[in-house]
Amino acid sequence: MIRAELAAAQAQIGAWLAGALSDFGDDAVAAAMRYACDGGKRVRGYLALASARLHGVDADRAMPVAAAVEAVHAYSLIHDDLPAMDDDDLRRGRPTVHVAWDEATAILAGDALLTFAFELLSRPEVGPADVRITLVSGLSRAAGAGGMVLGQARDIAAETAARPLMLDEIVELQRLKTGRLIEWPAVAGAVLGGADPAPMRGYAAAIGLAFQVADDILDVTGDELAAGKRLRKDGGAGKATFVSLLGLDEARARADALADEACDALSGYGAAADPLRDLARFIVARDR
Amino acid sequence: MIRAELAAAQAQIGAWLAGALSDFGDDAVAAAMRYACDGGKRVRGYLALASARLHGVDADRAMPVAAAVEAVHAYSLIHDDLPAMDDDDLRRGRPTVHVAWDEATAILAGDALLTFAFELLSRPEVGPADVRITLVSGLSRAAGAGGMVLGQARDIAAETAARPLMLDEIVELQRLKTGRLIEWPAVAGAVLGGADPAPMRGYAAAIGLAFQVADDILDVTGDELAAGKRLRKDGGAGKATFVSLLGLDEARARADALADEACDALSGYGAAADPLRDLARFIVARDR
Repeated sequence: MIRAELAAAQAQIGAWLAGALSDFGDDAVAAAMRYACDGGKRVRGYLALASARLHGVDADRAMPVAAAVEAVHAYSLIHDDLPAMDDDDLRRGRPTVHVAWDEATAILAGDALLTFAFELLSRPEVGPADVRITLVSGLSRAAGAGGMVLGQARDIAAETAARPLMLDEIVELQRLKTGRLIEWPAVAGAVLGGADPAPMRGYAAAIGLAFQVADDILDVTGDELAAGKRLRKDGGAGKATFVSLLGLDEARARADALADEACDALSGYGAAADPLRDLARFIVARDR
Repeated sequence: MIRAELAAAQAQIGAWLAGALSDFGDDAVAAAMRYACDGGKRVRGYLALASARLHGVDADRAMPVAAAVEAVHAYSLIHDDLPAMDDDDLRRGRPTVHVAWDEATAILAGDALLTFAFELLSRPEVGPADVRITLVSGLSRAAGAGGMVLGQARDIAAETAARPLMLDEIVELQRLKTGRLIEWPAVAGAVLGGADPAPMRGYAAAIGLAFQVADDILDVTGDELAAGKRLRKDGGAGKATFVSLLGLDEARARADALADEACDALSGYGAAADPLRDLARFIVARDR
């Protein structure tokens, strides 16, 4: 059920993004932007669409928001994969952008996708101006130097630190690096619908952490072909992960408990929130 | 007169930006963001403040807008200076960010400054939500894959092209790379004041091009110490510039004509626009 829903959202968001990006023509940077936005699980975009639907918001209004968070996610992957950062050559089963083009094109394509996300949120079809500016404020805080970028910087700093991170430090790092950009689209659906965002924030905090615990499990147990990216880099780098700190069984139990917590946060919504509950279960059980 | 006004704006914008950026704490990325935003001519920020004043807008509302365009400008310089791009080691008389820190910190500091610009525009003190979202839309279009980033990409592509660019191609490249981010703050003042932005757009188009012609003249005639950056890179690289295509005298005449054109565009404002006319004259006569 959730797999079919995710697959449908993947196709919709992918087609919509490709159409919106076609406005930028055929320069190398524009081609690299489209390449980087092609594929992926679309968990963040799906969250925006599902949360919007839960709050009675038309898909036409939610689609630019879903595309915006996927654009920010794609930008962060392009820059993260650069030689000066994680130095990855494989992403979504294909060469990374700086391998397929070059570093300059990758830097600029990332910059342009980040900028494009804010252009998408400014579009009139998203809703009243006060809703749009609330979304801009939220995304800029989630993605910026107090959010995702801070998490990325701490992740890099951890690689050369004198000691591996402790559990509470990893939780905080992941809340910033991954969690904030999972929280934003979930909250955005409530903002679009003029609803209290608190329950969605609680839900998203739990699945954000669950997502990262599952990623660490996948890094140990997963298949590179299915994942479409290099695995088992963390262990080789002596990096502390949820698995290295908790062990595999305890990490699995933690991920399941977080999925429960996420579902509980949605109790006020009744059965209408079942797709989001299914997503929480899917996140901890996924194979890529 | 204009030098004193620019110096005052430099100090005000610098202090305001440093204060706003202090919220991000002492991580390396935050320190690099502050370093990159320290100094510079502040022509773009001054344009926002002067255009806002011309349209009867309080400085308190205009300052986040001025800071936003300076943040975007600083981000573009950090990324432009990277080894994979222009590979510059000197900027504003000091080591570039990737030299003072490292490439990863420079990439992230640029990303975070770009993101921060949109956070600044979303702040309530800037004005009504519809004004703020119009500014977000304008900045994202000016800075993105149809604006500044496209100009940067074409500039890089020109270096390996089979033939040097022709005059109309350089005009178009510079309109994108430099002009759009000079136009935006000039127009922003009119948007803040609820006025027709057309005259400011005409003014800014002329000074944007004048600015780049003057930059090319300065690259040939200027002093590295005064400029605070490496000069005479273009000639060595066999790159077409306004000076290489027009000759020095004709380039100077073109810059002066563009300053006249800029002043003419402001005729409807009367003497109130004299600071902006002085800025147009200053731009073509500056020594850095």
